[in-house]
Amino acid sequence: MLPNSSERLFVFEGGTDGPWKVSEMEAVRGEGLPVVSAVAVRLGSEAQAAETPPVWDRGFALRGVTSNERYVARAEKDTLVARQQGLGRPEATRAALIPIRKSAAWWALTQDERRRILEEQSRHIAIGLEYLPAIARRLHHCRDLGDAQPFDFLTWFEYAPDHGPAFEELCARLRDSPEWAYVDREVHISLERT
Amino acid sequence: MLPNSSERLFVFEGGTDGPWKVSEMEAVRGEGLPVVSAVAVRLGSEAQAAETPPVWDRGFALRGVTSNERYVARAEKDTLVARQQGLGRPEATRAALIPIRKSAAWWALTQDERRRILEEQSRHIAIGLEYLPAIARRLHHCRDLGDAQPFDFLTWFEYAPDHGPAFEELCARLRDSPEWAYVDREVHISLERT
Repeated sequence: MLPNSSERLFVFEGGTDGPWKVSEMEAVRGEGLPVVSAVAVRLGSEAQAAETPPVWDRGFALRGVTSNERYVARAEKDTLVARQQGLGRPEATRAALIPIRKSAAWWALTQDERRRILEEQSRHIAIGLEYLPAIARRLHHCRDLGDAQPFDFLTWFEYAPDHGPAFEELCARLRDSPEWAYVDREVHISLERT
Repeated sequence: MLPNSSERLFVFEGGTDGPWKVSEMEAVRGEGLPVVSAVAVRLGSEAQAAETPPVWDRGFALRGVTSNERYVARAEKDTLVARQQGLGRPEATRAALIPIRKSAAWWALTQDERRRILEEQSRHIAIGLEYLPAIARRLHHCRDLGDAQPFDFLTWFEYAPDHGPAFEELCARLRDSPEWAYVDREVHISLERT
């Protein structure tokens, strides 16, 4: 069951301090983000309560909320739940934050049209399943937060160093898919912790 | 095309002042709302900028954002677009604000399961189409706003006095449908303006 939305809101703060060190920042499509050296992931409620100075004054603070799935069907969900691992595994010392914005043309499509492009044409869900349980993932929605957000989605990935090549392959396959014709801004931030 | 989310955020302020006078407030399911005598509908950006004292100190302020459709398929969308009328018609001096919250069980369903209940079992879209163009409607999403909201959806309806009985029939048919087993809070606020 989904908790209250205030417990589903996360803030990704990019600055000079944080547990995740930036190893690379790439503007895959469209405008990039300010270059930062570290990223901290906080619950929205904690970020609002924090008394520390905003490290993202010179960096960024991206907000997103976890939510119900928009496209996954029951059979896919059951497979996902059986295979996927949670965040925070001790061996998962590599992470990636990939903010994405989709075009106005995407959002003008109807639900059946978006599902057809995402899965029947692009196999987004099926491709993702191939990389489980190695790659853990959490999707955050930004589009309907109510204040203007620079991206529509923030996806957070965690994996062990050995699975780095597999993760890069996963990203490349999705970027090659018909769905990605509707992505008009994408940044890839590679992270690691000790 | 959808504008920026800050232009899609609306605030429904219930208090003592506003262009829409409350003719009736009914707690259809679950907890009601504070009794108010008038409702004002404002763009979120205007509500934040307003210097007037918050009339909803003793009433309510419900926020919601218009968004892409979650269930409508292309054929349905084309029919909707061809038939529906916009808000603000001079003859539409009756309105209703119906805030709804759905249960945790609803949000745990997958997309295909929710669509099946909403349309194939409950005919929510098809029933709504029968009342076009008489009843104009705008749906606002609250669930993913990022701060805790008391409802998941706010639907705003406008119609001419002659269509009041048809509107009541529409509400009764939807409340009788299988989908409504997943509604755990609903308030019906009937409004009129001169």
